[in-house]
Amino acid sequence: MSENLYHSFRPADLKLFVKQVFEAIGCSEADADLASDVLIEADLRGIDSHGVARLSGYIRLWEAGRINVIPKIKVIREMSGTATIDGDAGLGLVVAPKAMAIAIEKASIVGSGMVTVSNSNHFGIAAYHAMMASDKNMIGIAMTNASPLVAPTFAAERMLGTNPMCFAVPAGKYPPFIADLATSAAANGKLEIAERKGKKIPSGWLQDKEGNDTRNSKDLKRGGALLPLGSNREMGSHKGYSLSSVVDILSAVLSGANYGPWVPPFVSFLPLVANMPGKGLGHFLGVLNIEAFRDTDEFKRNMDQWIERFKNAIPIEKNQKILIPGEPEMTFKMERLKLGIPLIENVVKDLEETGKRFSISLA
Amino acid sequence: MSENLYHSFRPADLKLFVKQVFEAIGCSEADADLASDVLIEADLRGIDSHGVARLSGYIRLWEAGRINVIPKIKVIREMSGTATIDGDAGLGLVVAPKAMAIAIEKASIVGSGMVTVSNSNHFGIAAYHAMMASDKNMIGIAMTNASPLVAPTFAAERMLGTNPMCFAVPAGKYPPFIADLATSAAANGKLEIAERKGKKIPSGWLQDKEGNDTRNSKDLKRGGALLPLGSNREMGSHKGYSLSSVVDILSAVLSGANYGPWVPPFVSFLPLVANMPGKGLGHFLGVLNIEAFRDTDEFKRNMDQWIERFKNAIPIEKNQKILIPGEPEMTFKMERLKLGIPLIENVVKDLEETGKRFSISLA
Repeated sequence: MSENLYHSFRPADLKLFVKQVFEAIGCSEADADLASDVLIEADLRGIDSHGVARLSGYIRLWEAGRINVIPKIKVIREMSGTATIDGDAGLGLVVAPKAMAIAIEKASIVGSGMVTVSNSNHFGIAAYHAMMASDKNMIGIAMTNASPLVAPTFAAERMLGTNPMCFAVPAGKYPPFIADLATSAAANGKLEIAERKGKKIPSGWLQDKEGNDTRNSKDLKRGGALLPLGSNREMGSHKGYSLSSVVDILSAVLSGANYGPWVPPFVSFLPLVANMPGKGLGHFLGVLNIEAFRDTDEFKRNMDQWIERFKNAIPIEKNQKILIPGEPEMTFKMERLKLGIPLIENVVKDLEETGKRFSISLA
Repeated sequence: MSENLYHSFRPADLKLFVKQVFEAIGCSEADADLASDVLIEADLRGIDSHGVARLSGYIRLWEAGRINVIPKIKVIREMSGTATIDGDAGLGLVVAPKAMAIAIEKASIVGSGMVTVSNSNHFGIAAYHAMMASDKNMIGIAMTNASPLVAPTFAAERMLGTNPMCFAVPAGKYPPFIADLATSAAANGKLEIAERKGKKIPSGWLQDKEGNDTRNSKDLKRGGALLPLGSNREMGSHKGYSLSSVVDILSAVLSGANYGPWVPPFVSFLPLVANMPGKGLGHFLGVLNIEAFRDTDEFKRNMDQWIERFKNAIPIEKNQKILIPGEPEMTFKMERLKLGIPLIENVVKDLEETGKRFSISLA
């Protein structure tokens, strides 16, 4: 199957399909709408690894009894600037936006809202949740822990997820600044792409079972581990390890979810680890209300100046553009809203098979 | 002058000396005490580049009229969970702990406190401020922007500081987890050490004026730039660039301080950049009150388990210890509290010269 065989789909058609699948497994219409919106936004932004390609993974988790399609999401503790939420084993795609809405509400009243979430599942792209705040003139922060794939500096064991952190900041005339990054050197999706293409990966992404740097992506499945951002001790892998740990602690130790090697795997065929210390996996969602700190218009003018100045930094190669965080994803989105979302053939087949089970046809 | 000629000082003696110098330039006794405490803590923790070695730098900034020794630190805007502070051009060593105290106070009332600071100066080690919160069973966050030394991915221009972020998290029977990291691949202090020793630096830390990777630390002063964490595009330098940008935005765009290439240089002989958009440099201080999220004792038990599990991760080399963020600094502190703070000869001379000007003798 060639990497180059793409089929293009209208975003609205794809979203309707995904929504119908989520309704078919028992989600409410509103929850199915929200979950499908999160997945389609990933595809629109060019994060193909986190979009509809994952739909069948969520369905398998539901079959394995690990997702509750009618969760009673509860605030189990709160103060006026904070909340702790139990996601009742719901889809992270649904739990996280609801937690973010609570953080936004709190930030509108006391200036900031910090919310931690336990008993959830994978929440898709962090940017979706953080952007809920930047859409409302607030700074949004979203983090989640994830299945252990990353080794701490000096270790030959998978202890942390690719644990992303996202910061979304509104600007004035420019699109928002959106830094959305896995705290590993490379996200797992990049290895999958290399593997499909049969290509070697760069040094610095992966170590094998013994802890040696390797350029063979297959070594991940043979007991290897992804490397933290910084790749090796000399270039600062202890910093990537530290950042990933911070995401783990804020998302899970603070909420009562599972942390470190106990985080439940996304793939349903892997068993849960024994003696889990918490519930499900965890997220952290934070909001800073700009108007609480300074006049929002002044802030936006400064952000515009920040963006312009960085765009105009002297490039190394003459025609190289200096990119603003979030800019590549925005370019993808503009293009895909016009031309459609391109899906590779095996993703299309996977979606068709999922659809067939519920008698839903892919447009 | 040999790198190996160390003189050992009792922490209390060194602190008294530094305090007297700060009093001699006009700081109040309380402010001088606080500022000297921040510098000594850096030396105790083994961050020699941020301790008393910087004292003469602060004095030169004061001589250049860039530090106000009797600042009126003001809250210029606030809500119950947030504050914006104008540091009145005070020492960051004094402004930041006072801002942190406000964040802690707010977190004790509404669960979290988020404070941004403009019109300040360099604040020493981020960990000092973040640990003020972890000492009170809260999670502390401290960030600051700094003089431009780091190039964004694809750029040949210094646009960002080494912009550190620190997260301090209390544990139970273990010392706190403290992740304190420059968002560049290597902090500037590491280049200074290599230069003193006449050694090549590793590839991945620095680029020369044209943007080529270089192993010669001197290239920094010849128009080169430090590289963001991740070092190059393939290994994720866009992530280090993004994180550094987030620190810049939260510390300065949100507070009304200078950002990006406009941040005032720490060295007094460099001129300020024209058309500065804000006041001084900026910090961001955040606090999460653990009790607001869950029972503090439960949290600490989970942190202890987290720490134990990570300490016991399988090492690559048989006798290699897996380190917990903050552990190396704690080891330094235990040792130096007992054996004294070792200073190299040129730092001692520098201190003596500073002392002479104010008729204060180094013990």
